[in-house]
Amino acid sequence: MTNIGIWGLGSMGLGMAQSLVKAGLPTVGHDPRGVVLDGAADLETGELDIAVIVVLNAAQTESVIDAILPSLRAGAVVVACATVSPAFARDMASRCKAREVLYLDAPISGGAARAAQGDLSIMASGPNAAFDTAQPALDAMARTVFRMGEEVGAGSAMKAVHQVLAGTHIATMAEAMVFGITQGIDPARFMEVLPQCGGTSWMLENRGPHIRDGDYTPHSAVEIWIKDLGIINEIATDAAIDLPMVQAALGGYRKAVEMGLGREDDAAIAKVYAAQAGVKLP
Amino acid sequence: MTNIGIWGLGSMGLGMAQSLVKAGLPTVGHDPRGVVLDGAADLETGELDIAVIVVLNAAQTESVIDAILPSLRAGAVVVACATVSPAFARDMASRCKAREVLYLDAPISGGAARAAQGDLSIMASGPNAAFDTAQPALDAMARTVFRMGEEVGAGSAMKAVHQVLAGTHIATMAEAMVFGITQGIDPARFMEVLPQCGGTSWMLENRGPHIRDGDYTPHSAVEIWIKDLGIINEIATDAAIDLPMVQAALGGYRKAVEMGLGREDDAAIAKVYAAQAGVKLP
Repeated sequence: MTNIGIWGLGSMGLGMAQSLVKAGLPTVGHDPRGVVLDGAADLETGELDIAVIVVLNAAQTESVIDAILPSLRAGAVVVACATVSPAFARDMASRCKAREVLYLDAPISGGAARAAQGDLSIMASGPNAAFDTAQPALDAMARTVFRMGEEVGAGSAMKAVHQVLAGTHIATMAEAMVFGITQGIDPARFMEVLPQCGGTSWMLENRGPHIRDGDYTPHSAVEIWIKDLGIINEIATDAAIDLPMVQAALGGYRKAVEMGLGREDDAAIAKVYAAQAGVKLP
Repeated sequence: MTNIGIWGLGSMGLGMAQSLVKAGLPTVGHDPRGVVLDGAADLETGELDIAVIVVLNAAQTESVIDAILPSLRAGAVVVACATVSPAFARDMASRCKAREVLYLDAPISGGAARAAQGDLSIMASGPNAAFDTAQPALDAMARTVFRMGEEVGAGSAMKAVHQVLAGTHIATMAEAMVFGITQGIDPARFMEVLPQCGGTSWMLENRGPHIRDGDYTPHSAVEIWIKDLGIINEIATDAAIDLPMVQAALGGYRKAVEMGLGREDDAAIAKVYAAQAGVKLP
């Protein structure tokens, strides 16, 4: 039997934990806010084969690793799911390695609904032994695991590239929808026509309806992009490269936070563009 | 029988003309470069029911309309396919109306291959009588006609919105692919993983392979974006609105032209980002 611990029972982590329980895997959940995992097993950290860490960022990931590493057995695997820089992932992996703990650099993608259905995408890299040990958990949590090789950091690199695209596409969709309103094209018509054309994106089809319907329930919040595009910015600065599209998108998300929209759905970046253009959103 | 004339036998226009001939419609083609349309009918402009104009820009559209309007019969319809501003389309429509010629504001989307297969998307607006008369030509040229209402200008507005998305998505894909290379993700792996994720776009899937394969055969050239995003810029300036994503993308296309890449495929914007980042593309 594979024993699993999961740290962080937020919108993603709780769904992932539920998927692990549903798959019949003995799972214990940990969350500082006291969130309870139904059907959890009673497991000490020393009994775990897999420690899944699904917290907000690098700092929280590091705290969890600092806390559990002394208790984990040799050969256990840490599955680290937060969006972090490849350099940070390599640092954590080497700390784990010093204690004979395996490390899987395993950022996730797909949102809370897919997390609850065991339907995530995971972009993962690490030693084959880490993949082997983590397999039951990966199978339960994800529909697709993109294996990015044995080098820790490659998973986080692919996630960063994914976030360049996703964060920029949301901003572009919002800009285009507001531009359309200024030209007499209402958001409902926008959403009828453009998903059928070469101008579409996955994010347009997913987030566009939020603006059309005026529903900013935070499935994924504006402030996530401040964090994720901020990490990408750091990587780019370290590598001395320009990312003009990311810069333009990040400018919009920052203005959204200034307008008090940080906790709204990321489609609320449209409110920044609408305010500038002087148009009314639905 | 519906008689058709088509002006402009370039990469789009020739394919559209061939689709009209294939549909059995009497069609005459006109092109200043002497391009010949196989199977063309012998028709005077005064005999036409439909005049399709598929030239580069507003100035060329205006020249063709100036040249043919005196000869067109009352009730004939001009189908204007170039990407132009809504204001220009309204101006042309009113000139046509003064001579009892109908006007369909009918920008096209889909590329040369789909033009040749009668498989375009057309975003069209104009009087219902214009749609009725143009129907046989629209059926032959397009898979989908998005009817944007009776007001000329709405078709061009939707096309402008489409181009905001498409031009920005190409730049974003190129930026993300180059960023990936700096992080050790090669373009082949990029194209395997990202089309399956929430970061994908139609343009990523269509243009990404050009960069992966190092093939910049101009299916759609960089300089098209200087023109189309330039038109969008003009519209935005007139309306006093900012389009930060468009500005960022246009900056990249302009640098591509400065690098002598104007006639290459628009995926060549990746060469701008690669030069800046100091990485080698395939």
